[in-house]
Amino acid sequence: MNIAAYLAERSKLVDAALDLYTDPARPRREGPRLATAPAHIVEAMRYSLMAGGKRLRPVMVIAAAELFGAPAEQVMPAACALEMIHTYSLIHDDLPCMDDDDLRRGRPTNHKVYGEAVATLAGDSLLTLAFELLGRQALVEGVNPARAARVVAEVAGAAGAAGMVGGQILDLAWEGKGAPAEQLRQIHRLKTGALFSVSLRAGALLAGATDADLACLEAYADHFGLAFQIQDDVLDVVGDAAKTGKGVGRDVKHDKSTYVSLYGLDGARDMARQEVAAAIASLTPFGERACYLVKLARFVVDREG
Amino acid sequence: MNIAAYLAERSKLVDAALDLYTDPARPRREGPRLATAPAHIVEAMRYSLMAGGKRLRPVMVIAAAELFGAPAEQVMPAACALEMIHTYSLIHDDLPCMDDDDLRRGRPTNHKVYGEAVATLAGDSLLTLAFELLGRQALVEGVNPARAARVVAEVAGAAGAAGMVGGQILDLAWEGKGAPAEQLRQIHRLKTGALFSVSLRAGALLAGATDADLACLEAYADHFGLAFQIQDDVLDVVGDAAKTGKGVGRDVKHDKSTYVSLYGLDGARDMARQEVAAAIASLTPFGERACYLVKLARFVVDREG
Repeated sequence: MNIAAYLAERSKLVDAALDLYTDPARPRREGPRLATAPAHIVEAMRYSLMAGGKRLRPVMVIAAAELFGAPAEQVMPAACALEMIHTYSLIHDDLPCMDDDDLRRGRPTNHKVYGEAVATLAGDSLLTLAFELLGRQALVEGVNPARAARVVAEVAGAAGAAGMVGGQILDLAWEGKGAPAEQLRQIHRLKTGALFSVSLRAGALLAGATDADLACLEAYADHFGLAFQIQDDVLDVVGDAAKTGKGVGRDVKHDKSTYVSLYGLDGARDMARQEVAAAIASLTPFGERACYLVKLARFVVDREG
Repeated sequence: MNIAAYLAERSKLVDAALDLYTDPARPRREGPRLATAPAHIVEAMRYSLMAGGKRLRPVMVIAAAELFGAPAEQVMPAACALEMIHTYSLIHDDLPCMDDDDLRRGRPTNHKVYGEAVATLAGDSLLTLAFELLGRQALVEGVNPARAARVVAEVAGAAGAAGMVGGQILDLAWEGKGAPAEQLRQIHRLKTGALFSVSLRAGALLAGATDADLACLEAYADHFGLAFQIQDDVLDVVGDAAKTGKGVGRDVKHDKSTYVSLYGLDGARDMARQEVAAAIASLTPFGERACYLVKLARFVVDREG
């Protein structure tokens, strides 16, 4: 199967599970129950969650689980949790007091539709629902509850002040000041890299991976995350808004350092290719079993949106 | 020991643990590591977290654990997690786009000191750190990992769209419209009751309580929560700002329905006393072992802040 087909198939499973987990009519025994939640907040949560997107993080959870022999269904709560955490971060980052963006995934941002108060709370709810799913992951047959609890702690660590939120803080602090290369790397490592990395770790841990396995995935994620970010910066300059689903030239508007502003378009593209090669090299111990993670790394710099 | 002494002793333990869990210099093996978090966000988190408060939720976690024979130390991560979730909710509720409050626990609100962006992210970080602690709760000696994972899911359920956040949504929706009694009850059941209830459940579950035990605590929490809220409304009218730590007359300012506006001051006080009696009656099966929960219910309507 080529990577486009793999992504399409797995993300279809993820979309179906996200829909089910946020369906207020869903019976309690099958998952979180939103029946007693006000309809308005569920609508606001689903507006951003079901707006499409590549579902890259949940697919990474699944691909890592499959690498160690677990089927997608076994890690679906964790996979959806990672997408919810990603979506919450987009909703909050887009708020007027943060990046103040109007467009996301090709549609008006959450606060443009529901107002700032509801958007803030929709983000809060998605973050919280993610942890409800991660807690319920322990109930899935074949999952070790102690491993599930460890995944809760690891995901929280990667999403919090020492991870993704810390990255957003640094990003805001450097806005308009042109962060130097080293700072830019740290911002991205926290803001996007930490969540990529923990997506792989979550899937691998739930499927029974060893610490040595996790170290290889960690190295892969580090290079993958950098390649992804460089390509994001490239697309901000040369991308097509219809494909990226967000405004083009946003980095210039916010006067942000990017890999393109630091190294030029060709320099940035070269860097991205080197990072992809390094990411793929980290997977050597897994051999042919890691073929989809290999293809995923290549896909990330070839993508147009 | 009288309840004031019990509260003082247990909340001192909680304060020390909160301080330790948010100390960037703390070694990783002992708990969450904030060493790589930007100093500014840690400062903003600690500003609200270490501002005092009654530590009612963590003390409830501890009291419930003690009721089933577990010492306070065994549930300290969960106890602190509940206080972090409570604090995050206060930070976000105080934001200009929500209740727009300037004073909390006797000090300027988080966004007044750190700005809206950092305050939003400080709330996000505290919520996330809470779940890191709940995940790590599984590592504590004597704790069953499957129970720890269940507590993660239950706390998330109580804090999310079908619980606390849902209550805030309803509260905002009814602002200025004078919610009828039934709606007011539902708002408080979600906004404050759900977190009280899950605090008791968390402590009890981690200490090995049965489902029958949990049902008694659930009934207690429901009456306790209502009594607490009525007293809050009473204090908003007759309270001393120096003791409550927040402005007086805030409900009138926001044109909110309260138990005082619906039933008058004497009517509200009568209701609170009846709820305390019902809360205490729910504890009958536990006998003398539940003495601190009995005293806590009485304390809640006798308090001045």
